[in-house]
Amino acid sequence: MRYQKINYLIFLSDFGNNSPYPAICKGVILNINPAINIIDLTHSVSQYNPIEANFILKNSFLYFPVPSIFLAIVDPEVGSKRKGIIVKAFNRFFVGPDNGMFSFIEEKYIETIISIENKSYFLPAISNTFHARDIFAPVSAHLSNGIPVENFGPELKKMRKIKLPDPVYKNNTIYGKIIYIDSFGNLVSNIEKKHIEKYFSSCQKLTVFLENCSFSIPYKKTYSEVKIGNPVALLNSFNLLEIAVNGGNAQKYFQKGTGTIVKVK
Amino acid sequence: MRYQKINYLIFLSDFGNNSPYPAICKGVILNINPAINIIDLTHSVSQYNPIEANFILKNSFLYFPVPSIFLAIVDPEVGSKRKGIIVKAFNRFFVGPDNGMFSFIEEKYIETIISIENKSYFLPAISNTFHARDIFAPVSAHLSNGIPVENFGPELKKMRKIKLPDPVYKNNTIYGKIIYIDSFGNLVSNIEKKHIEKYFSSCQKLTVFLENCSFSIPYKKTYSEVKIGNPVALLNSFNLLEIAVNGGNAQKYFQKGTGTIVKVK
Amino acid sequence: MRYQKINYLIFLSDFGNNSPYPAICKGVILNINPAINIIDLTHSVSQYNPIEANFILKNSFLYFPVPSIFLAIVDPEVGSKRKGIIVKAFNRFFVGPDNGMFSFIEEKYIETIISIENKSYFLPAISNTFHARDIFAPVSAHLSNGIPVENFGPELKKMRKIKLPDPVYKNNTIYGKIIYIDSFGNLVSNIEKKHIEKYFSSCQKLTVFLENCSFSIPYKKTYSEVKIGNPVALLNSFNLLEIAVNGGNAQKYFQKGTGTIVKVK
Repeated sequence: MRYQKINYLIFLSDFGNNSPYPAICKGVILNINPAINIIDLTHSVSQYNPIEANFILKNSFLYFPVPSIFLAIVDPEVGSKRKGIIVKAFNRFFVGPDNGMFSFIEEKYIETIISIENKSYFLPAISNTFHARDIFAPVSAHLSNGIPVENFGPELKKMRKIKLPDPVYKNNTIYGKIIYIDSFGNLVSNIEKKHIEKYFSSCQKLTVFLENCSFSIPYKKTYSEVKIGNPVALLNSFNLLEIAVNGGNAQKYFQKGTGTIVKVK
Repeated sequence: MRYQKINYLIFLSDFGNNSPYPAICKGVILNINPAINIIDLTHSVSQYNPIEANFILKNSFLYFPVPSIFLAIVDPEVGSKRKGIIVKAFNRFFVGPDNGMFSFIEEKYIETIISIENKSYFLPAISNTFHARDIFAPVSAHLSNGIPVENFGPELKKMRKIKLPDPVYKNNTIYGKIIYIDSFGNLVSNIEKKHIEKYFSSCQKLTVFLENCSFSIPYKKTYSEVKIGNPVALLNSFNLLEIAVNGGNAQKYFQKGTGTIVKVK
Repeated sequence: MRYQKINYLIFLSDFGNNSPYPAICKGVILNINPAINIIDLTHSVSQYNPIEANFILKNSFLYFPVPSIFLAIVDPEVGSKRKGIIVKAFNRFFVGPDNGMFSFIEEKYIETIISIENKSYFLPAISNTFHARDIFAPVSAHLSNGIPVENFGPELKKMRKIKLPDPVYKNNTIYGKIIYIDSFGNLVSNIEKKHIEKYFSSCQKLTVFLENCSFSIPYKKTYSEVKIGNPVALLNSFNLLEIAVNGGNAQKYFQKGTGTIVKVK
């Protein structure tokens, strides 16, 4: 039995931009499904960091066509007994090591989780260091060819989840953290639009503080509401509170990284 | 009414190689036109630098198939009142913020300039920080599907232009500037083949000087006419005077950047 | 006469990730063969380093579909009298400057070597600095359209070969060298699985030494057999002896680069 062919494979990894490894995986995939359209989401996830992979997938997956396969390779435990999984949700398949990268998918949306075990869909020789090439790429490609997801292995009750800290509200203040820094040096926090709307009315004038009270930053709608070179806090395009510098780089400006505390008052 | 489908979209931005943003834009585009072929021109334009985007577009656009769409995203003023435009010229469409990136297109070649205003071609929700995803990507994709360019908004009389300094000739010397440094560290100037041919005969032996007279560099035809490790000036593949080091890196060798004065005698 | 169309072009260069040059070459190719599927193997080969290009091609080419064309551009001698070649082997064509990048192809597998000389397949104007765009890209594209390889120029008896040092065995020790460092900082040596199997029985407990005896590293099957942060030696996915740090970066850990001596006892 075969299901519908899947035309899009979105590929994320921590291989780095200088690496030939993503291309090798693409070669393996194209050997199995020559018609597939592979889109590189990014290969610059911080190395061995499934939390960042989870963040990027969460904020991007909805923009890609369906049906599609997300091949996500951040695999610090390659060669160990960690499982490989396929998660079906949102008319998409998410394929990769079971290390929490798919934590953003709430249980209620999950149709099935499969433990990848059926070796007939692997490359003939399996290395101990490159399962992306030997297991995850060929499995994704066979899946895109319409092989039913159940064929790849037994169903799992649950996958590993990363516990992500939620923002906390007390004393008329939301406390959050910087969780991602983009290529412009924008400091992205875990404080969402919904948190701000829940605790503050839209007419309140808010101020954002970075690392206790050492930096106070005006909360605006757009970068350009402050002068070039000045810091600004706003809701970014993923509806997350972001601290930026208009025409500049907030990471360099504040010399702060992920984990820094953010307060909204 | 629909026009011809466009198969090629060439994508340039300053998002950086580590960013998932280009891929997110591609997802949006492929949702609207699943058949389009997207080519990444570069995502490494110096951030917030439309002058560099203009330089790269000018020297590359002719090599891509037509009809095609150039999606150019260098957008320091995102969220402000700067316009978004579509420029039609050379059987190509150039789409992006109106900030001078398309200055290389001489007025006589422009068929039309459209101000992007028709929200029915945007994503349903428009952020204040990511118009590439919410406006320019979907507009480009609809344009590639054959939607007439007039449908996207009213015609503009003119677009913003960047005034670029032309080389100057006096005292038997051409004075120019370094305007681009490529990934090999080659220092590319704004002195064109036509300038050299205008002021000097082909049998004259020329010397090139970097930053007043502190460096004197032989003018040759190819890198290999000087020894490995030695500097050389030549007309590069874009017919621009370039200062290089054979087998080396002129930027590191001379420790000079864009804006440095170049003289040809 | 035309041969079979070739659908895959795999593109490797030392242009760097920030460069628009690969995209310009793709534009040229797509103008000639609009249907071709171009896969970027890597554009981060160390600049002017055909030895590294040879290493990457050797360890990746088998994973890509056939028939296919490998366009390999590492060209420190561009503009000189170095030849451009097409090597036919393994149902693939390898196209690029004749500088040893294809040394991994043993003579017995070579069907033909062609010297690229027929200007009718070049771009009309040939620069002295960008033969990738002007010669190698269009030649590859015409080749993919089914133009017989003989049409591109006369046959050559041999191509240039890089002499690569083989590991040496003496005093019950294999002596090799670090020849490649991947994006995870893994130190990859020229000692192959076959060398280890030839000189040691599988039940022997081996130790690997980096740079004489200053570092002694346990030889294991997988990264995860040592604790996070600890060094480990293993056979990697290309069957080469690799020195890694579990969850870390061996290059930073050992502060060693290519050329470092590796011993297996």
